[in-house]
Amino acid sequence: MDPVLDRAFSEITPVIDSALDKYLPASSAPPGRLAEAMRYSVFAGGKRFRPVLAVLVSDSLGGKREYVIPAACALEMIHTYSLIHDDLPAMDDDDLRRGKPSSHKAFGEAMAILAGDALLTLAFEVAADSPAAASPARLVAEMAKGAGPAGMVAGQVADVDAEGRGGGLAEVEYIHKHKTAALIRAAARIGAIAADANEAKVAAAGRFGEALGMVFQITDDILDVTAETTALGKTAGKDAAAGKLTFPAIAGLDGARQEAQSWAGEALKSLEQFAPTHTILSQLVPYVQGRTS
Amino acid sequence: MDPVLDRAFSEITPVIDSALDKYLPASSAPPGRLAEAMRYSVFAGGKRFRPVLAVLVSDSLGGKREYVIPAACALEMIHTYSLIHDDLPAMDDDDLRRGKPSSHKAFGEAMAILAGDALLTLAFEVAADSPAAASPARLVAEMAKGAGPAGMVAGQVADVDAEGRGGGLAEVEYIHKHKTAALIRAAARIGAIAADANEAKVAAAGRFGEALGMVFQITDDILDVTAETTALGKTAGKDAAAGKLTFPAIAGLDGARQEAQSWAGEALKSLEQFAPTHTILSQLVPYVQGRTS
Repeated sequence: MDPVLDRAFSEITPVIDSALDKYLPASSAPPGRLAEAMRYSVFAGGKRFRPVLAVLVSDSLGGKREYVIPAACALEMIHTYSLIHDDLPAMDDDDLRRGKPSSHKAFGEAMAILAGDALLTLAFEVAADSPAAASPARLVAEMAKGAGPAGMVAGQVADVDAEGRGGGLAEVEYIHKHKTAALIRAAARIGAIAADANEAKVAAAGRFGEALGMVFQITDDILDVTAETTALGKTAGKDAAAGKLTFPAIAGLDGARQEAQSWAGEALKSLEQFAPTHTILSQLVPYVQGRTS
Repeated sequence: MDPVLDRAFSEITPVIDSALDKYLPASSAPPGRLAEAMRYSVFAGGKRFRPVLAVLVSDSLGGKREYVIPAACALEMIHTYSLIHDDLPAMDDDDLRRGKPSSHKAFGEAMAILAGDALLTLAFEVAADSPAAASPARLVAEMAKGAGPAGMVAGQVADVDAEGRGGGLAEVEYIHKHKTAALIRAAARIGAIAADANEAKVAAAGRFGEALGMVFQITDDILDVTAETTALGKTAGKDAAAGKLTFPAIAGLDGARQEAQSWAGEALKSLEQFAPTHTILSQLVPYVQGRTS
């Protein structure tokens, strides 16, 4: 990782973690193991990519940290809920997440469903209750649009539907844009909204986030083919085994790499439209494209 | 049903249904059967109890309908998501809901999980995007508190935990207060907030809603013992079969009826503190207590 970007992650991640710790119920809070299950997945070692992106976009537009941190934490809760539900036996049926047993393996299926539901709901409470430059309701609406039936959930449905049935480039692009890029786009827009940026800049930040999200997911597809389970922290080779629709499956590894390259260019072009001199954000693009886990 | 209350339901329910129809994605909207699954459960014949309660409380405090309807619809989406997830095989494993196959029987488990997630997320988008006398963010926060890890989800966790293990009056009261009464309490508070009522009235409306919610759930427990599956539209006798913690199981049918009566008195007492002359709201109490399905 670029040293400037590395420093930014090292500085922002603990701030996010400590705010998440404050927002989540204490491990010992009743009932049963609910709080424990919520914390288990939130603190399983995620990179905090979506919150860091929201904070960096806000920073680049002169926003105050206190206005973006709550919504950034809410984005991480939503991301975590989506992983918990995605891993369920009826969905991707994955026993391993971030190198540890997935939620339903550790806590049982009922608790995994409920811990996911609780994280999704708490996310909106945290965002709605937050101080904000603009209106907290707008942050909530952005988040819900990115995560809901026209965003992330649409991508998950299309992903499940496509399994084994196949499809072409248009289908895989639809899946990736919704399943992964929609929430990353929301993170970037939320960073801009929290900084009270004008509509043109919010829109440009959204395009940056969406393109970055596409690079992120195509790289994920590639890593599923090329990396080892231990490095990934989740089961490698699983996409092909499950007949998932991915860029490598449709366009081959080289085709997938070209596709990632093209979205990386798109991201850098959008960045010029809202934060042309922000070197940390520009370093995010090669970082996402070059990551190995 | 009391004729005045009957007229109120007959007038408000179509307004809620038509707003829900507007907020939900069209049946044909991609991807796959997501929108169809969301609509299947929302339009399965629910009584719209939570939205009607929110609207009646707002009416009683002189609120404008346009300020309460979106949040009222959001409450129904949250209620519907909770039923879909509750019926899942890993949870209550119920094949029948409102006299029809439950969501996972009709659409498969993956789609039922995702349709629930989509309804919960859309609820917050609708509430956040709504016009409001007070702030829409406050409506979102109220809703999330009622539905989240300190509210409805806490009740579901305690309910699952108690199955077969048993418990006493304190445990069953905890379950009912959280699983059922928390969202009904939120509905009543939201009605008051949407009407821009003062804090004392919002609090009294909340106590009314909570007490009404307790009457509602205790009556549900009693009906599970005394009613037929066809009348209920869901499997009767299921609580006892599953070793659920209910008031009849702990205190017997007579004890449960006394408990319901005591909460009914509590509800009427709270009503005097925010809408003493509102006969429709006061009729809600015997209606909930006397319902047969």
